[in-house]
Amino acid sequence: MTDLTSLAAIRAILAAAPDASGAARSAAADRNLQLTKPPGALGRLEDLAAWYAGWRNDPRPRITAPQVLIFAGNHGVAAQGVSAFPVAVTAQMVENFRAGGAAINQLAELAGARLDVHALDLDRPTADFTQGAAMTEAEVCAAFATGWTAVDPKTDLLVTGEMGIGNTTSAAAIAGALLGGEGWAGRGTGVDDAGLARKAAAIAQGLAANPDRSGLGVLMALGGREVAAVAGAIAGARARRIPVILDGFICTAAALCLHVEDARALDHCVAGHLSAEGAHDRMLAALGMQPLLSLGLRLGEGSGAALAIQVLRGALACHSGMATFAEAGVSGA
Amino acid sequence: MTDLTSLAAIRAILAAAPDASGAARSAAADRNLQLTKPPGALGRLEDLAAWYAGWRNDPRPRITAPQVLIFAGNHGVAAQGVSAFPVAVTAQMVENFRAGGAAINQLAELAGARLDVHALDLDRPTADFTQGAAMTEAEVCAAFATGWTAVDPKTDLLVTGEMGIGNTTSAAAIAGALLGGEGWAGRGTGVDDAGLARKAAAIAQGLAANPDRSGLGVLMALGGREVAAVAGAIAGARARRIPVILDGFICTAAALCLHVEDARALDHCVAGHLSAEGAHDRMLAALGMQPLLSLGLRLGEGSGAALAIQVLRGALACHSGMATFAEAGVSGA
Repeated sequence: MTDLTSLAAIRAILAAAPDASGAARSAAADRNLQLTKPPGALGRLEDLAAWYAGWRNDPRPRITAPQVLIFAGNHGVAAQGVSAFPVAVTAQMVENFRAGGAAINQLAELAGARLDVHALDLDRPTADFTQGAAMTEAEVCAAFATGWTAVDPKTDLLVTGEMGIGNTTSAAAIAGALLGGEGWAGRGTGVDDAGLARKAAAIAQGLAANPDRSGLGVLMALGGREVAAVAGAIAGARARRIPVILDGFICTAAALCLHVEDARALDHCVAGHLSAEGAHDRMLAALGMQPLLSLGLRLGEGSGAALAIQVLRGALACHSGMATFAEAGVSGA
Repeated sequence: MTDLTSLAAIRAILAAAPDASGAARSAAADRNLQLTKPPGALGRLEDLAAWYAGWRNDPRPRITAPQVLIFAGNHGVAAQGVSAFPVAVTAQMVENFRAGGAAINQLAELAGARLDVHALDLDRPTADFTQGAAMTEAEVCAAFATGWTAVDPKTDLLVTGEMGIGNTTSAAAIAGALLGGEGWAGRGTGVDDAGLARKAAAIAQGLAANPDRSGLGVLMALGGREVAAVAGAIAGARARRIPVILDGFICTAAALCLHVEDARALDHCVAGHLSAEGAHDRMLAALGMQPLLSLGLRLGEGSGAALAIQVLRGALACHSGMATFAEAGVSGA
């Protein structure tokens, strides 16, 4: 059993995370040069294939068993009037996920992905972080462990998604705490000008009330249970060398907490898309990540990342399915 | 039988092209507002769904029968030393397409798309356009007709692709003729500096030798058979109200010829991706098109557009499969 019962234990696990296979990555890069196309003509798909091959320790892999995980949580800070939607919507959307009616259900089905929904103590919102830490150490560790154990060890690609009224406020606070600067608050689900002002004020209060600037300290103080679970799933995937496609603003904030703890912590992750939530691009830039898609989505649920599964799958289909110049009898340059 | 035996006849057909159903588009937009997500949260996917619904005259459609068409042709201008690969590669790649070994085979399979390959008189290259028109009127019309008739009337989404050593030179010449300005020549499959200089010189000579600046006149003078076939397929899809995803630099040049003839001619088209071929962004800007993907591909074959099928399919899966707020019992904003 992996010990996930304290932040110190989690830190030790992050520091001991396994790396990709350099040999498999190298073999994949060699194969790429022999495929029937001009060198580099598949652009980023070529790099993605080699990256994925390294993590799967297989120079010619395919994606056959993707998993989408959705974590839902409720936020004490929602009481500050930071969202356009009532808090009850978190539980209602969980029911919608379970009934198959949400966007992520359609996109997971399209990708042939298993979809699991984890509702984390929805009737027990986190504490309002404007007054102190959102979670206790026990609470953040339990949520992190939920994410960690939710990862199917047999999956070969993980997408993390989330749902939680108020959680763009949490994510913006995390970004502000870990990256500094202003302007992290955005419209979220569509808050009006007055709501946006309340959101910015709540974030400023939250940063003042919670001085710890370590990655996991910020996750505990300003995150939510679903944000901590996303972080746990990302780390849990890493322990099993399962590549991850990050979704939008909230998932990236969760990932950022890991990155601040250990600069290698996201080497197995790729950014699925650029969210329309204003500050997402600044977060991705801080992580040195280029999103696979940029289509103005700002829904969460894992939706943009699930759509990006097919891009990565296309990269592997080309890499592993194409003929070489020698096999096809095609002349080189 | 549609008369495609003269440029005048083709012009008449372009002018009489059918439009999308405004009623279906409107009904789709109404449905979109009721789906269980914040308004606009699916970004561009929402616009794509309404656009597709209009063309299919169905407010709740899905993509079930996509078709990928590849046209191959050889170019007299290749004799000017404009490509990094020998001319024999066109026929070799056609064999590779037929044997299932190319990138487009993998991507079409991933998208569940029918793939048809049409080789157009490979043993009879077009004339070298530095000396006059690449094709006669009869030749360009025959190639256009090949494209037109290659479209399966039962398909519900078309991707056009091409293969032809020397055809980025043809496409750059088309762009130069129709849009003016300099710098349309790019590296294509990876030509070196000397080859790039020969390419730019051939394009300048081609523009000087062929003064007609009508869309179809330029297609005849500077295009190739596969470029004309792509244009014919785009127009043939329009006649059947089949939406089209355009591929990269060469397909966009073919589309540009139609656009210059009739500004409505590409209303049923969307740009699949932004090619790494330098001047593609300028062509897309001239057409007012935003690419769905931007992953640095520059392969042709329909590869980028085939990858984009899943983005459009995802848009329709969400639009047509999601529950409404009323169906799911989710509270509104």
